[in-house]
Amino acid sequence: MGQLYLALAHYPVLNRMGDTIASAITNLDLHDLARSCCTFGVQACYIVTPLKDQQALAGRLTKHWIEGVGGEILPERRQALKLLKVVDSLSSAIEDVVRRDGNTPIVWATTAKGGHNSLAHRHARRLLENEDRSFLLILGTGWGLAPEIFDSVDAVLEPIAGVNGYNHLPVRSAASILMDRLLGRPI
Amino acid sequence: MGQLYLALAHYPVLNRMGDTIASAITNLDLHDLARSCCTFGVQACYIVTPLKDQQALAGRLTKHWIEGVGGEILPERRQALKLLKVVDSLSSAIEDVVRRDGNTPIVWATTAKGGHNSLAHRHARRLLENEDRSFLLILGTGWGLAPEIFDSVDAVLEPIAGVNGYNHLPVRSAASILMDRLLGRPI
Repeated sequence: MGQLYLALAHYPVLNRMGDTIASAITNLDLHDLARSCCTFGVQACYIVTPLKDQQALAGRLTKHWIEGVGGEILPERRQALKLLKVVDSLSSAIEDVVRRDGNTPIVWATTAKGGHNSLAHRHARRLLENEDRSFLLILGTGWGLAPEIFDSVDAVLEPIAGVNGYNHLPVRSAASILMDRLLGRPI
Repeated sequence: MGQLYLALAHYPVLNRMGDTIASAITNLDLHDLARSCCTFGVQACYIVTPLKDQQALAGRLTKHWIEGVGGEILPERRQALKLLKVVDSLSSAIEDVVRRDGNTPIVWATTAKGGHNSLAHRHARRLLENEDRSFLLILGTGWGLAPEIFDSVDAVLEPIAGVNGYNHLPVRSAASILMDRLLGRPI
């Protein structure tokens, strides 16, 4: 059985115009991803941003819930938010997995667009079931991961298919669906 | 093939202490649910609240994206938010489905807790595939739907199973996962 890690990238991602930017952290992304990761047994969720003020913001938010009064009121929120780890780059996330597990993770990127030679969800699930190693799943904020990411990863997961071509799922929803598809109880 | 509708109930729901309350509308719930519904071909998403000021708030939010400048900047957001309909009660949601489709929908409630004689997701999916009629899936905000709802619906869907007993998914995530399980492409 493999160990799955998540990374929510705020850099390098695209904006609406197709420029590569560092996006701003969204409070609810952190809460939702932490709760979904906790539900599905994801080992850790890396919040990736090179911006020092955004790192500090994420640190304050999580501290409120892990050490502060938030965690006293909602202990189940503390349990989830403990899974978050703020890092300055995707390389740092990979290094942290290596430090924890002693192996370099298989890295998967995600996209809402087709056109990549993509890995089917059922194959990704099978790898997780059968390989005793670490995997890192990268999700992009904004208008998705910058193109250079797709060249640097081991595979790109197939997009989540809707029913009519509309492909604008929130990253929070896409992350939850992917965790359910890769780790959840089969329907 | 059945027609699926969603209802996001802000009343009657429980608060942290187990009291029945009307919860406040969350902006991001509306956006996320609309985008997920649009992705999976849900017919409409009812935002249920008896509170007039909250109805007005939801109306202002959706108007900005449907008629206002929001929809000009992000047309795909307009397309999604058009699926939202603010109603004052679950009965009004059911009446609206009857008005649209000419049949009374099968009503399903959702819960994060076990203990109900629940409908498996695979059975719910099969009903949607095979029955040419309407279905209404109710999700609760806050700490979940008030108990009386479970007595008044046709079935309660099985909870989304995680891997370790943690059952605190955000309603946004639970909704997305259920839509994928009921309507998405099989893994």
